[in-house]
Amino acid sequence: MQKKVLVFGSTGSVGRNSLEVIEKAADKFEVVGLCGNSNIKEIVKQIRKFRPKYLCLKDKGSANQLKKRTKIKFKLFSGKQGLEKFSRIKSDVSIMAISGIDCLKPLLINIESSKRIALANKEAVVTGAKFIFPKAKKYKTKIIPIDSEINAIFQLLNLTESGNKEIDKIYITASGGALLNYDKKSLKKVTAKRVLKHPTWDMGKRITVDSATLVNKGFEAVEAHNFFNIDYKNIEILLHRQSLMHAMIQLSDQSCFSCIYAPDMKKPISYALFYPKRMKLPKIDLDKEKNKYSFSYSPIPYKKFPLLKIILEAGKRDDNSLVVLNACDEVVVDLFLNGKIKFTQIEETIKKIFENYPSKKIKSIGDIYKWDNWARNKTKEILGEK
Amino acid sequence: MQKKVLVFGSTGSVGRNSLEVIEKAADKFEVVGLCGNSNIKEIVKQIRKFRPKYLCLKDKGSANQLKKRTKIKFKLFSGKQGLEKFSRIKSDVSIMAISGIDCLKPLLINIESSKRIALANKEAVVTGAKFIFPKAKKYKTKIIPIDSEINAIFQLLNLTESGNKEIDKIYITASGGALLNYDKKSLKKVTAKRVLKHPTWDMGKRITVDSATLVNKGFEAVEAHNFFNIDYKNIEILLHRQSLMHAMIQLSDQSCFSCIYAPDMKKPISYALFYPKRMKLPKIDLDKEKNKYSFSYSPIPYKKFPLLKIILEAGKRDDNSLVVLNACDEVVVDLFLNGKIKFTQIEETIKKIFENYPSKKIKSIGDIYKWDNWARNKTKEILGEK
Repeated sequence: MQKKVLVFGSTGSVGRNSLEVIEKAADKFEVVGLCGNSNIKEIVKQIRKFRPKYLCLKDKGSANQLKKRTKIKFKLFSGKQGLEKFSRIKSDVSIMAISGIDCLKPLLINIESSKRIALANKEAVVTGAKFIFPKAKKYKTKIIPIDSEINAIFQLLNLTESGNKEIDKIYITASGGALLNYDKKSLKKVTAKRVLKHPTWDMGKRITVDSATLVNKGFEAVEAHNFFNIDYKNIEILLHRQSLMHAMIQLSDQSCFSCIYAPDMKKPISYALFYPKRMKLPKIDLDKEKNKYSFSYSPIPYKKFPLLKIILEAGKRDDNSLVVLNACDEVVVDLFLNGKIKFTQIEETIKKIFENYPSKKIKSIGDIYKWDNWARNKTKEILGEK
Repeated sequence: MQKKVLVFGSTGSVGRNSLEVIEKAADKFEVVGLCGNSNIKEIVKQIRKFRPKYLCLKDKGSANQLKKRTKIKFKLFSGKQGLEKFSRIKSDVSIMAISGIDCLKPLLINIESSKRIALANKEAVVTGAKFIFPKAKKYKTKIIPIDSEINAIFQLLNLTESGNKEIDKIYITASGGALLNYDKKSLKKVTAKRVLKHPTWDMGKRITVDSATLVNKGFEAVEAHNFFNIDYKNIEILLHRQSLMHAMIQLSDQSCFSCIYAPDMKKPISYALFYPKRMKLPKIDLDKEKNKYSFSYSPIPYKKFPLLKIILEAGKRDDNSLVVLNACDEVVVDLFLNGKIKFTQIEETIKKIFENYPSKKIKSIGDIYKWDNWARNKTKEILGEK
């Protein structure tokens, strides 16, 4: 029998990649629901191909337009409340690829009705890990990370005889993003277009900017800590420009095992769908590959990436700092992408907010939204955008 | 309780490394027997340190001398028959590091009396796999390869959920040996001293020469085929100069997993001793290592290494060819090391014998020795050494 799949964020980069994987394994998976934001053109294509029973567009206007664009029947949800209802649909697998903190609520709801969640979103884990994982445990919902590095760790840990018991260290690799070799002066002038040219990965916009500041890598360390219950002191980040080796584990005898594949999100997505099995794909001959595989890695130049240190420091504090930093980052990256601020102001603003936020415990989901909101306002205030 | 260990070939490179590992884990392992050839100085040191109950020196003269050199009591075996008796001693783990085909008989005997054999020797597997593995199965003796590449595959396969069921390919890496960048003309003049300067590994003499001709790598493919029942067409060899990544497996979704550690035989030895657990060793910070880890791999230049193709071809034939080639290689390498022939004559002679040997099935251990003997004589005949 086919497994019923919901795709949250189906028109984004991960969503589209997920649907490509599902298309190739149509005998095993059936798309029952698609959820997008406002990209009608893309969603109409997807509807024609997958004929889902349920559809959700967060943007109400787009939802109204959509009705006029297709005669295919489906149940349509829209708006925030519509998204919450859509999140209650029962599924075998939900692919969660809504970007930003907007993913948190659908995720928390969907844990109750899905058997497995393939989670691409980082921000929900960064801000709400303490609510997500206990709830998943309670509902016996398996959350599998799709984020390539975290997925690689998940794969590597699944491979070891005793899970994470004999792990001495985990290495997450970082490409260093689009601006690794830029000096301070050039960083001031760098355009959004330039930052969005990632050397190895083709991804969404915010994550590509976050890759250039290494905020993204800091978030991955937070993910690794929360997914696998591994102490921050045993999580290392290595600079690895080629994005071929996604993670590495170091066992008690100091032997290392790494997970290697060409940078393509379809790999971790298919693993999350097929786990504990694997998709059967055409055999690759590495020795006949055009690009000779060549890896290198070296220490991260932390001085060049102060935001990475800040995120790691925040990870260790059990307070509202990650919520605040995530919200601030979301706002500044958005302003940068819209040409409102310089690239260097991303770092300046996040630094400023980290120095000045009032440290408070997060005790409820409400606290997350409260501090998220506080940080958004504070960020705009700092930048004089209010 | 400590596990009882026999070390065959204790004065050689692998033997000495094994004793170093055992010394560090003296609470877990007790050396009950040591077996060497003629290096009295080394064996006396080892006797003083480990106080084994049993000792064996294959060379009878050396055995007689040994008695005079120490007052420590032990039961001494010597000569071929002595070695056979020594091989019948019961043990929890036997480390088999006798070099050449001389290892075959002790191995076949020891399978009956040891629970686990950590096997460093290649030649026994290359010549006698069809007798070794069924016998090990019958006596429920676990044979664990110590040869670094094969050990790495063993580790990687142990890590996968379903053993070798979902393996698409296995990659064995080759450093390319000491002479990778030599042209034909320089190869004619190369000295044994030069060949023995391996770029990454510190090993015994024959294996170091075999690394320069890639005969060693061919033998490893034969080992991999026999240890893991993997078809030759799914075994690839990759050139990887740094000897950090010892093997890689490629699963059905084309993700790869590799086993990485600095080239040091103590790693695979300790894994074979501690399996399925791992030795606890001091934590290494890869990002603080002096040598930045950098890997590359590329296709093997097969044209440069015709002997590799020959060994792989022989592996596919189910006849006496591997026995013949191994014996021929053992003789020519010995002659080269003793300055009797040129380096290029190794290749010439092995080619000649492969073109002219009579292809016959190996039906008994006796057949192995018969063809081994035939090839030794034939080799000397070809070289006019008889």
